[in-house]
Amino acid sequence: MKIGLIGLGKMGYALAQNMKDHNIDVVVTNRSLSKVDEIKQYGVNGVNSVPALINALDDKKVVWLMVPAGDPVDQMIDTLVPLLKAGDIIIDGGNSNYKDTVRRSENLKAMGIDFVDVGTSGGVKGARFGACLMAGGSSAAVKYIKPILKAIAVEDGYGYFGPSGSGHYVKMIHNGIEYGMMQAIGEGFDILKASEYDLDFELVSKVWSNGSIIEGLLMRMMHQAFSESQSLEGILGKVDASGEADWTLAEALRLKVSAPVITQSLFARYKSKDEAHFSEKALAAMRNQFGGHKIYKA
Amino acid sequence: MKIGLIGLGKMGYALAQNMKDHNIDVVVTNRSLSKVDEIKQYGVNGVNSVPALINALDDKKVVWLMVPAGDPVDQMIDTLVPLLKAGDIIIDGGNSNYKDTVRRSENLKAMGIDFVDVGTSGGVKGARFGACLMAGGSSAAVKYIKPILKAIAVEDGYGYFGPSGSGHYVKMIHNGIEYGMMQAIGEGFDILKASEYDLDFELVSKVWSNGSIIEGLLMRMMHQAFSESQSLEGILGKVDASGEADWTLAEALRLKVSAPVITQSLFARYKSKDEAHFSEKALAAMRNQFGGHKIYKA
Repeated sequence: MKIGLIGLGKMGYALAQNMKDHNIDVVVTNRSLSKVDEIKQYGVNGVNSVPALINALDDKKVVWLMVPAGDPVDQMIDTLVPLLKAGDIIIDGGNSNYKDTVRRSENLKAMGIDFVDVGTSGGVKGARFGACLMAGGSSAAVKYIKPILKAIAVEDGYGYFGPSGSGHYVKMIHNGIEYGMMQAIGEGFDILKASEYDLDFELVSKVWSNGSIIEGLLMRMMHQAFSESQSLEGILGKVDASGEADWTLAEALRLKVSAPVITQSLFARYKSKDEAHFSEKALAAMRNQFGGHKIYKA
Repeated sequence: MKIGLIGLGKMGYALAQNMKDHNIDVVVTNRSLSKVDEIKQYGVNGVNSVPALINALDDKKVVWLMVPAGDPVDQMIDTLVPLLKAGDIIIDGGNSNYKDTVRRSENLKAMGIDFVDVGTSGGVKGARFGACLMAGGSSAAVKYIKPILKAIAVEDGYGYFGPSGSGHYVKMIHNGIEYGMMQAIGEGFDILKASEYDLDFELVSKVWSNGSIIEGLLMRMMHQAFSESQSLEGILGKVDASGEADWTLAEALRLKVSAPVITQSLFARYKSKDEAHFSEKALAAMRNQFGGHKIYKA
């Protein structure tokens, strides 16, 4: 089976290399063709347009999208639909909202095109050398592409979770958990930093990465960062939230499930970027009104 | 060097077996002698009393305490002091509060006895087959026992963090982080359970344990639990808090560091055991007062 991969961002580029390493007959394209030229030097088959990519595939077309979540996915589907026929398969390997996935799947089903969602975890290194893949969609379509998924995933790092959207749903919750775990680690080091002990964070994170209850990829990444700089020099304490934790909280609200830690971890990221500090200004103003307490002036 | 280990609870028992496996000349005792008889069958040298244990050691005595944190540690130190002399070493391998450790260390220092704190992570399996050890105390004393610590720890799972209490301090923060990480994982599965997708939690936790960003010992333990029962049958949703997260929060308050996720994870455990639900009764009463809203009656 041949597969076409569209989108050579960091994740797509690494996945294409991973496929190539596993002797998967992959052909790629990208909006910026310099990336296509670059990956050709790695031996990956690259073409200059989406129609050329479709032409290069077998009769039953399989196309893996690694384009940014949101409108770019819809736009790419619109580009692909006239080039595909019933029985073909589109895979969305990005971080799409599962509701979008369900909608896209239903629209494509009407044309006989299968839409498979594959949540991808493990970062760029995982995409490159062994990913964690969470698949959803029709069982027949997922079964058809399963050899590819198994080849590029780490052992036991692939799962099929059910109907359309389930893969992206499981990936979304994964990211919500990730936010909570990361915030817990950050808070722990914040207390260590404030303590009277003069601690070697590179050593702390190394020891915690080996044999502790809190060992894992996040702690190993923390260790790598402290290896580079004990004070995390040059890094500003502003953290983006890329969407999945927001969606996780929206799900918690919709399903009326209490999720205080995931909530706090997301709000901590919002606060990290809040330079207006309007709520704190309001508190300071009230304290000044009722108690004449000091106001810090700009 | 010989070492005496006092306390054959789950962790002490496993550590003694681990020492024996590494050809460390360990002699043990325990309040309940049946445990001593049991571990003798594994080839570990056991005696019937603390004085007998001290007698069995070399001239420079090294005693490892694995007794419950709090009064039992003070009581055991009181028992040991008349049997020890300047230059001897007591190791506290339990989950003691670092402030107690600093106090004990200062008292013992007046007698010339070194007191080393060793925070131990990795659970019973870690204690048995390779622990994560966080040591604090005088550098000379820690250096003296280092071969033992290195032998029973996993590779790179041992660290010396500085003066007395620093080992227990790092272990305390480890546990605070652990609470936050565990709560994040629990919340994630709670949302998955409430969703319309009929998800296989054994598969979710397996896939997340292999190649994902949230992989690690906690997720592997979650997978083991779901392997035994997808619905976690027979387990009540009440979670004890064993103290270290409380101390972590006390540190956050003392040092004025914001730690919302660790706070919420501890409070979630308190709430899990709150059968009185007095705060919720108060809310229900107020809603009824101002809006005539329904009250659920016992």
